[in-house]
Amino acid sequence: MLKKIFDYIDNHFSETVADLIRLCSQPGISAQGIGVEESARLVTAMLQESGIATQVLLPPGGNCPLVYGELAGDSPNTLLFYNHYDVQPPEPLELWTSPPFEPALYNGHLRARGAADNKGNIIARLAAIKALLAIKGSLPVTIKFCIEGDEEIGSPHLAAFVREHRPLLRADGCLWEGAGVNWQGQPTLVLGLKGILYVELEAQGASRDVHSSLATIVPNPAWQLVWALNTLKDPQDNILIEGFYDDVRPPTSAEVDAARSLPSEEAELQQSLGLNRFVNGLTGTALTLHHLFQPTVNICGLYAGYIGEGSKTVLPAVAKAKLDFRLVPQQRPEDILSKLRRHLDKHGFTDIALSQAVEGEEPARTPLDAPLVQMVKEAARQVYPMEPVIFPTMVASGPMACFTQTLGIPTVGIGVEYPDCRMHAPDENIRLADLALGVKHLAALMERLGRS
Amino acid sequence: MLKKIFDYIDNHFSETVADLIRLCSQPGISAQGIGVEESARLVTAMLQESGIATQVLLPPGGNCPLVYGELAGDSPNTLLFYNHYDVQPPEPLELWTSPPFEPALYNGHLRARGAADNKGNIIARLAAIKALLAIKGSLPVTIKFCIEGDEEIGSPHLAAFVREHRPLLRADGCLWEGAGVNWQGQPTLVLGLKGILYVELEAQGASRDVHSSLATIVPNPAWQLVWALNTLKDPQDNILIEGFYDDVRPPTSAEVDAARSLPSEEAELQQSLGLNRFVNGLTGTALTLHHLFQPTVNICGLYAGYIGEGSKTVLPAVAKAKLDFRLVPQQRPEDILSKLRRHLDKHGFTDIALSQAVEGEEPARTPLDAPLVQMVKEAARQVYPMEPVIFPTMVASGPMACFTQTLGIPTVGIGVEYPDCRMHAPDENIRLADLALGVKHLAALMERLGRS
Repeated sequence: MLKKIFDYIDNHFSETVADLIRLCSQPGISAQGIGVEESARLVTAMLQESGIATQVLLPPGGNCPLVYGELAGDSPNTLLFYNHYDVQPPEPLELWTSPPFEPALYNGHLRARGAADNKGNIIARLAAIKALLAIKGSLPVTIKFCIEGDEEIGSPHLAAFVREHRPLLRADGCLWEGAGVNWQGQPTLVLGLKGILYVELEAQGASRDVHSSLATIVPNPAWQLVWALNTLKDPQDNILIEGFYDDVRPPTSAEVDAARSLPSEEAELQQSLGLNRFVNGLTGTALTLHHLFQPTVNICGLYAGYIGEGSKTVLPAVAKAKLDFRLVPQQRPEDILSKLRRHLDKHGFTDIALSQAVEGEEPARTPLDAPLVQMVKEAARQVYPMEPVIFPTMVASGPMACFTQTLGIPTVGIGVEYPDCRMHAPDENIRLADLALGVKHLAALMERLGRS
Repeated sequence: MLKKIFDYIDNHFSETVADLIRLCSQPGISAQGIGVEESARLVTAMLQESGIATQVLLPPGGNCPLVYGELAGDSPNTLLFYNHYDVQPPEPLELWTSPPFEPALYNGHLRARGAADNKGNIIARLAAIKALLAIKGSLPVTIKFCIEGDEEIGSPHLAAFVREHRPLLRADGCLWEGAGVNWQGQPTLVLGLKGILYVELEAQGASRDVHSSLATIVPNPAWQLVWALNTLKDPQDNILIEGFYDDVRPPTSAEVDAARSLPSEEAELQQSLGLNRFVNGLTGTALTLHHLFQPTVNICGLYAGYIGEGSKTVLPAVAKAKLDFRLVPQQRPEDILSKLRRHLDKHGFTDIALSQAVEGEEPARTPLDAPLVQMVKEAARQVYPMEPVIFPTMVASGPMACFTQTLGIPTVGIGVEYPDCRMHAPDENIRLADLALGVKHLAALMERLGRS
């Protein structure tokens, strides 16, 4: 049966590519408010053409509609697909080889904004459904689509939406987007994301900038900010906020084992970044474990006074820092925010204002022994020529906790990307061979889930 | 005799105002390279019209010519006038009541860019010379003019010029510009300026900005900069650079006494700056002494990463700080720079690069008991209705040490300004009554010096 399904996928692959070209031709740029509604309409139409019932829903407080789709299968076993139809702004346009919204086929690749992130994955999921329906007449499992339009601006409204639509979104497992194959061709399974808290610190001095000759007597908010930041982290990379590590759950031995078996890309990363050492001189397994499982506090931006060329003798009225904390289970953004406030107050920085630029995201982690993980892995072995690689977590953040926590379902990221797909950058692209493998992986997984 | 001179000054005051209008009509903006040569030519012409022999000299490495003038008097006793013909850029133009280079007379004031800083002083000096020549036929003392064209960009070439022209500039005392009367109408004598060292610190991380999820392992130069800055000064305002205070000469008891007798402007300053306390809660005499006699290190600017609206999760490749140190006798900018380098190295910040944005300036101080100070004070008493106020030093910086140190002569700042003259700002202006008093003060001083 799987052979017939794979043959169908191969024989109809030009239709799959045509679908991807159709979807990538429609800009949907959430950050710029361009083509968002048109994108939602197009996605809706494409789902409906495959027989999927759809609803277009506006998340509470949001501007970008969310497309929900559902198609019952032979089994009540339900698989939820998380995707997003919005893309990053295409700028700088002059660095594109072809226009970002005029998909171009070249040498086995398709180049377009969104091809990898993540319209390729939407189309792969649709193509797998079409193949199963064509060969079997019905789906082996029930599927649901949750396709948001806000992901590229941080999914500010998804958490509230999921909380309000728990019954609608109920499923036994979720497939995330945002993975693919590594340079060796191994398919990657992603079982978690870090959480994030993004805050701005603002120190205020005099009511206006003044001549720096007053520095003897007028408080300088830039010094105040430096002193405050200095209390947050020491040069040995220890985060000094009281209670910061309290809720950190150490990785399980299974997670440590999975991390140990990941291929090392240490030398490549150092070379690419012009570095000769990482933080604290970490290397090997210690580096991998630290990178995957430790939380961070990072200075994203720092600003005060005069930053142009040459000199200006000014004592600034205001100084600002933008920080992001990457969180690991069971840390929570709102808890870290209140610990940060308490820490600043305790160290005498009551006058430094804190504000949250965007809603935080909770960390998410699906256990390695969840049955879905084994299913996705076994299905990958039926399709890919190389052994799958399992990341217990990625180091980036995303709204995955809406599914692992709010819905309480295992969530696994797979996809059609490869290391040079240039997500968020000019000349975003995918390899068509990866797309075909991705479609087959999804079909094999649904078949397997139907039999479980 | 003085009565006749003062009468001449009053009777010819409209000519003095006409001279000021003529000089202020000529832009000479060193920062923008506008009208500098024309200004030098005009100043030369105006000096020559008063019988002063002139030379136009280009300071080594400079672009703005310096106008030198000399007129022998009855006594070999020589008084050097330091001035500058360049002005600050007039922008923002829309905030001017009348065009900045079309001098406007209103209600006893003259409004124009440069009226206060410091063309009013050039004209006052010329008018005093004209009056003395008219009444006496000759000057009681020999006078020299040193009128540079670079002051508003930090006098980058004056130190070298003075070093190279010691014999030409030889004098027994120097009159500085940049003073006037306070709100109470008391004339101000300024006996010193602080020195300055302006440096940029640059911390470098990876070769490009990276995604902040790498903060676990990629060093962040913004943290490095924060940690380095934190070692320079503590929240109690102590500068922690080893040896920083070594060469600080405590104020003499005469200087302390002079500082104590200065009128307090504490409440006004706090109100104007929206502050309810100064650094360390200083107040009264302790505040005045700290403000006048202590050196500083000030953060003029701070920059790293993303400083726009909202959030960007970035780990910056570079972080920069601009610092200015205000120095007091006998600190020297180059010594403080090498101490700063040693301090950073000792604390493990060998990778933070230091560069000097502009040449430093040494602190300058003329002793309160220098005979010239007494002369200037006594002459002021003959002219102004209020008792003179003596500032042992100002808190700002300037190239005064070229005269006090390199030429080794006492230097006193006096002038025609008043607190609302808006130097460096739109609607710069002087009061014509202050101009007349300034001319008489200069004439009385030259008379007095001729008799000494």
